[in-house]
Amino acid sequence: MNRVGFLLKVKKEYLKEYKAHHEAVWEDMKSALHRQGWYNYSIFMKDDGFIFGYFETTGTFAEALSRMERERINSEWQELMAPFFEIPGGSMPDTMMIELEEVFHLE
Amino acid sequence: MNRVGFLLKVKKEYLKEYKAHHEAVWEDMKSALHRQGWYNYSIFMKDDGFIFGYFETTGTFAEALSRMERERINSEWQELMAPFFEIPGGSMPDTMMIELEEVFHLE
Repeated sequence: MNRVGFLLKVKKEYLKEYKAHHEAVWEDMKSALHRQGWYNYSIFMKDDGFIFGYFETTGTFAEALSRMERERINSEWQELMAPFFEIPGGSMPDTMMIELEEVFHLE
Repeated sequence: MNRVGFLLKVKKEYLKEYKAHHEAVWEDMKSALHRQGWYNYSIFMKDDGFIFGYFETTGTFAEALSRMERERINSEWQELMAPFFEIPGGSMPDTMMIELEEVFHLE
């Protein structure tokens, strides 16, 4: 398994809404993530809207994102999320995630 | 197991040195982490020195940090790391980690 870390930034005025949506992620979206190889997936938030994502997958981050594109439910989820993020006009959040370099790991 | 996410900031001029140290973490430091309940521990770095840490532990982040204080090797490691971080005068890095809130998890 590879470990992936990525960053995103939620607009401050949408922090509560973002959290509420993530307390109630659609079951179909969760199934799609599993089907496409996203495991042990956590999202952490700083109070200024910085978001850190962590998950484990068999391939690369790019592959995991590209596999999710096969899932119709993912487009719906990304459209729902799009207004919450600080991203240039109209892009979907899953194209704006900054991948981080893993510099240490201990099992 | 609980999942912990935390942030730290490495000074830009020390990024290379920080990475080099983390490619060669002392075996005794790794054993101490395991003995004190730090598992599946990864550190991710952004190119501006932002560091995100993720690990799994049976208790809280505060408990995991406090358990590490029992380990003499940890003081030595934290002293070695202290100059690399953007922290107010003289504090040890393990007292300056910002804990992040987990807002989503999928097994």
